[in-house]
Amino acid sequence: MTARPDLPRRLVAEALGTAVLVATVVGSGIMADRLTADVALALLGNTIPTGAILVVLITILGPISGAHFNPAVTAVFVARRELAAGEGLAYVAAQVLGGVAGTLVAHLMFEHAPFAVSATVRTGASQWLAEVVATFTLVTVVLGGLRFRPDAVPVLVGLTITAAYWFTASTSFANPAVAIARSLTDTFSGIRPADLPGFVLAEFAGAFLALGLAGWLLAAPRAAAAPVATPAE
Amino acid sequence: MTARPDLPRRLVAEALGTAVLVATVVGSGIMADRLTADVALALLGNTIPTGAILVVLITILGPISGAHFNPAVTAVFVARRELAAGEGLAYVAAQVLGGVAGTLVAHLMFEHAPFAVSATVRTGASQWLAEVVATFTLVTVVLGGLRFRPDAVPVLVGLTITAAYWFTASTSFANPAVAIARSLTDTFSGIRPADLPGFVLAEFAGAFLALGLAGWLLAAPRAAAAPVATPAE
Amino acid sequence: MTARPDLPRRLVAEALGTAVLVATVVGSGIMADRLTADVALALLGNTIPTGAILVVLITILGPISGAHFNPAVTAVFVARRELAAGEGLAYVAAQVLGGVAGTLVAHLMFEHAPFAVSATVRTGASQWLAEVVATFTLVTVVLGGLRFRPDAVPVLVGLTITAAYWFTASTSFANPAVAIARSLTDTFSGIRPADLPGFVLAEFAGAFLALGLAGWLLAAPRAAAAPVATPAE
Amino acid sequence: MTARPDLPRRLVAEALGTAVLVATVVGSGIMADRLTADVALALLGNTIPTGAILVVLITILGPISGAHFNPAVTAVFVARRELAAGEGLAYVAAQVLGGVAGTLVAHLMFEHAPFAVSATVRTGASQWLAEVVATFTLVTVVLGGLRFRPDAVPVLVGLTITAAYWFTASTSFANPAVAIARSLTDTFSGIRPADLPGFVLAEFAGAFLALGLAGWLLAAPRAAAAPVATPAE
Repeated sequence: MTARPDLPRRLVAEALGTAVLVATVVGSGIMADRLTADVALALLGNTIPTGAILVVLITILGPISGAHFNPAVTAVFVARRELAAGEGLAYVAAQVLGGVAGTLVAHLMFEHAPFAVSATVRTGASQWLAEVVATFTLVTVVLGGLRFRPDAVPVLVGLTITAAYWFTASTSFANPAVAIARSLTDTFSGIRPADLPGFVLAEFAGAFLALGLAGWLLAAPRAAAAPVATPAE
Repeated sequence: MTARPDLPRRLVAEALGTAVLVATVVGSGIMADRLTADVALALLGNTIPTGAILVVLITILGPISGAHFNPAVTAVFVARRELAAGEGLAYVAAQVLGGVAGTLVAHLMFEHAPFAVSATVRTGASQWLAEVVATFTLVTVVLGGLRFRPDAVPVLVGLTITAAYWFTASTSFANPAVAIARSLTDTFSGIRPADLPGFVLAEFAGAFLALGLAGWLLAAPRAAAAPVATPAE
Repeated sequence: MTARPDLPRRLVAEALGTAVLVATVVGSGIMADRLTADVALALLGNTIPTGAILVVLITILGPISGAHFNPAVTAVFVARRELAAGEGLAYVAAQVLGGVAGTLVAHLMFEHAPFAVSATVRTGASQWLAEVVATFTLVTVVLGGLRFRPDAVPVLVGLTITAAYWFTASTSFANPAVAIARSLTDTFSGIRPADLPGFVLAEFAGAFLALGLAGWLLAAPRAAAAPVATPAE
Repeated sequence: MTARPDLPRRLVAEALGTAVLVATVVGSGIMADRLTADVALALLGNTIPTGAILVVLITILGPISGAHFNPAVTAVFVARRELAAGEGLAYVAAQVLGGVAGTLVAHLMFEHAPFAVSATVRTGASQWLAEVVATFTLVTVVLGGLRFRPDAVPVLVGLTITAAYWFTASTSFANPAVAIARSLTDTFSGIRPADLPGFVLAEFAGAFLALGLAGWLLAAPRAAAAPVATPAE
């Protein structure tokens, strides 16, 4: 429709979006954890802001950079040849830097030290499976949404993460850049740096599983000899 | 508008959608139950993800298969002659298989045994009435939504189930395939297999009650001799 | 746009909508109250389903009857001459009957006696002010929404009631038919029959205050001599 | 598109909107605080109504006045020369008067004294940083939304504040008029008058930071020599 904005603006959009996303995840985690002893309530106080801000950020930054905020999503678009590999790498760098800045801002707002290495253990086959499922679901939703209802993608992603915080055992990181940023906070939403490789691998695996499925499932329907009227389902 | 996708893609869409739906119901039930002793909070942690994921799944899979994920809904479309009986049976098989797979995935993510027979008693006239009401409401909403605002159906269904989790005494299963899948988990969202027949019968009863009402209520308005301008209500 | 459906269908829509609305208010109140000792959590478990079902009911029944479900709203449309007085009376009868049926259904689902006179005291100037504010806000939103974004009215009403459950001291009944129906349940959402007149009067007062304000505030803008381009605010 | 409504109507819209917004913030804070001892739950009971009513108020009053309800937002539009300075001052007066009226109405509904000076301390560099971040995010969202999805601005603002209540350490006042109104309530949502200057300064700082960034980030994309087709991201 329109020409794509230049690369600097797109990188700033990716960095800014990932920063606000991580500040929301980490900040709301600290706030919730501080205010209640009930962990389900704390998770709710972490879930609602995260889902809400995702809708916002993808709506306003999507027209600039595509609003990936996520190296696994960027890798999928590179694989689909909708983004050059070099630009993809720049996107990932912007996402990681933005994410780390988000942790820093959250810490400063809540009077924590700028960074703190997380001690929260998140490892094992079940956790990895959860990350595969979470990222598979996220990328399937992104690709299905772009195919059928592009204007709804921001809401679809926000609702997917809202659900996945609860239905996956890992509370759905589903994002290598956010995982790295969350390894630098020793609060509610943290992850031990040693556990990052398992999470990151599982996230890329889930993303490419989704890419494979979508390549078949979302392909143009095989036209019937005589087209059948589709009921309004 | 467009030709309908081929049957294999539609069956995969039904199975995938029902699987993610059940994984969400069962998984978020386990998560919520694990994190809090307050049952209302646990139900909220079960409700929000379920409503959210329904919006998502119906949006991205609806254009492929119609996104029934529910034998009672499929039966209604067969009765309306919008789906051949044979295809309807295939849909139901895909839904049940997908649902069972969803329970399995949730159990593996949360380190439970692959399957466990539920011991949760859900029976009696009040519970059956609740399932009639829940499925009647769901199918009325689907048919009314398709008639007046097809693009809003995903949100309408998500919000209906969000409400019905709380206003029906059964927490609104409203879906025979999901009920079967939930009989295989001995966690927050389970149902004793012996109680399945009552639930399934009540669900089909509610669905066909809605079909009957909608046939009359949603019929084209009787045109007045001189058409009256409709106020913008 | 289209001719208006015939009166029987419109009355059934009003009765059905008010029934499901009241079943949701009363039923979710019983459910929430049963599951938790925390009253704020119970109110949340009452609020979310009510807001959600309002969006649904207004979307699917609005095109049939206008989806008033509320004598105060019906009175406003009669006053605006968009509904004949006789039809308005029939609407109100359908709303009250539907509301009472909603209480009955909720009671049967939760194994309560069919009806029980509420003992919950809700009276006094502060409560009445709260009902004036709640109904004023509701009717202003309905009229403003119809003027500027008719397709958004269902969501606007759902969100208004969601907010008003918390920001008004009366938890926002804002609806004489629903108030009457709620006098027949001695549960979380009940109101003592003796307190009905005060609530009903306050609700009509709030509705007509909104009608008066909207008549001025929403009137067509006074055109400038040379029309000024409106910024995209 | 259409001529702008006359100034009196716009000022009433600003006053009314800010009044209902503040009544919601203060009223739901009192309600939530009264019903539960869990502060996270109280904040949730404060967040959900506030986010909900913002969507409503911006939708129905935006077409009249732009629905600023916020001197920091008004200042940004004056700086962008979309509003004359004199009208901007009148907007701010209407917002402050409306906000104070909102506190009064909330107090009367909940049987509090008309006004009470807040004793809640909210000061220090971390709190100010939080207000900078909150207002920066809000104004970026408003400007980005107006640029790319003007019809979505009401929802975007509602979701932004929903998130910011939790991810900023100050629970995101982000609005000088609302801050002033909240200094007159000694309840959950109050702020000590002595702490107002720091908050107000931080809010204007955040707003103009956003204005500066948006001037560059949202500028028309530099057209490539040969326009590149934008993928549907």
